[in-house]
Amino acid sequence: MSIIKLVANSSFYMQYNYQIREDKSKNLIECCQETQLMSLCQGTRDYNPKQMAIREKVFNTIISCFKRHGAETIDTPVFELKETLTGKYGEDSKLIYDLKDQGGELLSLRYDLTVPFARYLAMNKITNIKRYHIAKVYRRDNPAMTRGRYREFYQCDFDIAGQYDPMIPDAECLKIVHEILSELDLGEFRIKVNDRRILDGMFAVCGVPADKFRTICSTVDKLDKMSWEDVKNEMVNEKGLSEEAADHIGEYVSLQGGMDLAERLLQDQKLSQSKEACAGLSDMKLLFSYLQIFQVTDKVVFDLSLARGLDYYTGIIYEAVLTQVGETVSVGSVAGGGRYDGLVGMFDPKSRKVPCVGVSIGIERVFSIMEQKAEASAEKVRTTEVQVMVASAQKNLLEERLKLTTELWNAGIKAEVMYKKNPKLLSQLQHCEDSGIPLVAILGEQELKDGVVKLRTVATREEV
Amino acid sequence: MSIIKLVANSSFYMQYNYQIREDKSKNLIECCQETQLMSLCQGTRDYNPKQMAIREKVFNTIISCFKRHGAETIDTPVFELKETLTGKYGEDSKLIYDLKDQGGELLSLRYDLTVPFARYLAMNKITNIKRYHIAKVYRRDNPAMTRGRYREFYQCDFDIAGQYDPMIPDAECLKIVHEILSELDLGEFRIKVNDRRILDGMFAVCGVPADKFRTICSTVDKLDKMSWEDVKNEMVNEKGLSEEAADHIGEYVSLQGGMDLAERLLQDQKLSQSKEACAGLSDMKLLFSYLQIFQVTDKVVFDLSLARGLDYYTGIIYEAVLTQVGETVSVGSVAGGGRYDGLVGMFDPKSRKVPCVGVSIGIERVFSIMEQKAEASAEKVRTTEVQVMVASAQKNLLEERLKLTTELWNAGIKAEVMYKKNPKLLSQLQHCEDSGIPLVAILGEQELKDGVVKLRTVATREEV
Repeated sequence: MSIIKLVANSSFYMQYNYQIREDKSKNLIECCQETQLMSLCQGTRDYNPKQMAIREKVFNTIISCFKRHGAETIDTPVFELKETLTGKYGEDSKLIYDLKDQGGELLSLRYDLTVPFARYLAMNKITNIKRYHIAKVYRRDNPAMTRGRYREFYQCDFDIAGQYDPMIPDAECLKIVHEILSELDLGEFRIKVNDRRILDGMFAVCGVPADKFRTICSTVDKLDKMSWEDVKNEMVNEKGLSEEAADHIGEYVSLQGGMDLAERLLQDQKLSQSKEACAGLSDMKLLFSYLQIFQVTDKVVFDLSLARGLDYYTGIIYEAVLTQVGETVSVGSVAGGGRYDGLVGMFDPKSRKVPCVGVSIGIERVFSIMEQKAEASAEKVRTTEVQVMVASAQKNLLEERLKLTTELWNAGIKAEVMYKKNPKLLSQLQHCEDSGIPLVAILGEQELKDGVVKLRTVATREEV
Repeated sequence: MSIIKLVANSSFYMQYNYQIREDKSKNLIECCQETQLMSLCQGTRDYNPKQMAIREKVFNTIISCFKRHGAETIDTPVFELKETLTGKYGEDSKLIYDLKDQGGELLSLRYDLTVPFARYLAMNKITNIKRYHIAKVYRRDNPAMTRGRYREFYQCDFDIAGQYDPMIPDAECLKIVHEILSELDLGEFRIKVNDRRILDGMFAVCGVPADKFRTICSTVDKLDKMSWEDVKNEMVNEKGLSEEAADHIGEYVSLQGGMDLAERLLQDQKLSQSKEACAGLSDMKLLFSYLQIFQVTDKVVFDLSLARGLDYYTGIIYEAVLTQVGETVSVGSVAGGGRYDGLVGMFDPKSRKVPCVGVSIGIERVFSIMEQKAEASAEKVRTTEVQVMVASAQKNLLEERLKLTTELWNAGIKAEVMYKKNPKLLSQLQHCEDSGIPLVAILGEQELKDGVVKLRTVATREEV
């Protein structure tokens, strides 16, 4: 039937955005922002259709990138046995949600996707996989929803497990962060890299006792939010480090650079005494050589102040931050990750290790930015993909409207019809405008007699 | 660069399945089925990459259908305030998962997507929406995983909220079930329809006391699993119904038909005495007239034994079952739904009602069937979409391989490279075969000198 071809061929039907033409339209989205009567759990949110459209766009960008790099995907349950999560997150374990004991097993909601991934690898004896996983995780943190911090939030993880030559998978993870943040077009960003071995070596040569490495590391991790004076104060007065050791650390953590810094530090009289630091620094050089080939060194900085909180990292670590134009202050981390060669072994009865490196994109912040952008722009986000509305100007044509709609649906065309016996033409056209439907097929007695259908573009009222 | 065009133009790159050519390949999927060392929570499952590929295919079919019918999508949190779920599910409420009280609000995991949807509408004062929602729900039921019954499982819901002319949205929901089950190609199916008003009218004229309607309804609901004798026994001996009333019910619930049955029952001496039943029967006639226009009456049966357990239904109810070839025994429900005009009002402080009708596709059973099909067939399911593998036959070409891979990635082509300095050509080709990568770009000293790349199809070893 010709209308099917007409609609299918129309260039409108894949458009994502369309210009606002009338503001009087009753807009679902606006309703959604009114006072809330029933309440949601603290720190959680609904996604309305407009927010979902943005979310879908962000996910598509991220998933395309993961697929471009050859990743498979897996899924794991939202809850795990409590013991699976125990002892993996250090001080943050207090933020884990537990389920009520209703008889049976003790369960907890997943805190991240990395530990379930390691459990999955061990359980299925997988030693080689490149996988992505996009799912919600749960943390009983203080919510700060305007800043994109929720108790339920998405993580988009990409990980490479397997025994490979050093730094090649690690470099690919950074390439992926670079691609995704560039494509999402969120403005300037920077990817800081460091290595746990360099940190540990640095702590050792600065005179930090071995049993304080992790806790001092947690304090260093606060440098993106606190001044050096406050960090030093916490080290010395709360964690009992000598002032001299703290000052030594202070010198190192102020350093930033690229491959040249790694080379310089390999010559550093003190740091070069640590075998661990040297191994990390050599790998850092190697990493930068691959990053050059991948053409991403413009955004990557070797930054000795980067520490990252989680316990399970064993090698390279990294974190991407958005940097506001004209400022060097970071406005928040949007991706992070690193190498964790020991985690899978924690789940294996024979402690067999599977080396892993991965990255997690934290997209709630990205959503916030995209939503603000969408609101600020004159573009209206479509929340459906309907190509054509089947309408009529006259009464008693419900059956004919439904028949034509059926034909369109059966031909795979996205079509809508009003669920009223005798809707007004104006309200049918209004619905098209509100939801951005580009075409309207108008039925009338005369057209039915002639066996034709008028197809109009909604925006111009012109016949196609 | 020409290789980019070559790969991009290759007809292979969107293929989903490919023939198994070598069985010796170490297959991830097989590993996944080995004995499990770490355990998962009871009634939950991981999805391995092969299962995810099948899941993605099923979701795409379902989402395309929902979008074809003009639905927007929303998302809600995995947990709700406990009070939101209280009093909505009747006897099934005992199956709700509660979270541990860790200070703060009392939370429960969502039991379905319908109650959160109603809460969302009330909270945002939405009176008109057509939305779909695909997400996991949680029930502390006895798991029967081989039959596709899990404690964590997906629901794919499509609902139409709003005040419209009778039976048009209801008929569209059935059209959607018909489209999805046809497209998923799961074999024969049947969609049973009934109406809560017809059931209630039937109970009234059969002499069931009004306060026993819901509990007798629950017993009738078991007719798909139990014989009439057992159902009658439960009514009489457990629920205290008179034998006479039970026998009367027995006569009605054996009836099946189409519009003709609705017409006949409108003339039924007893049933026509119930105003409620008559309203339901008239609407059933109207429904069938729309189903005829939608061309779906071949699969739809008006079945007076269909009851459905949930409390919130107020009008039309339906359930789709797969019917094995040659048998009339149903092998399980794969979709269900109905009209629930009172649920949104339960969340509104002024009890404003928003009429709703919807359908939920329960896809775990669908996954099981599709997975069995995939295993039985000679087709291997691809778990990545990689178009080309960048390989080399000679040593010391890592940098060149990474450079070419970077070019491909930057051009948007899905490409892989082995993370080894000097991988064997055979192991690179083996990887292509294992994961169905159609093309391989082979670098060698001579090609580098000549500034060209050999592009071969993996299956035939021929140059492209």
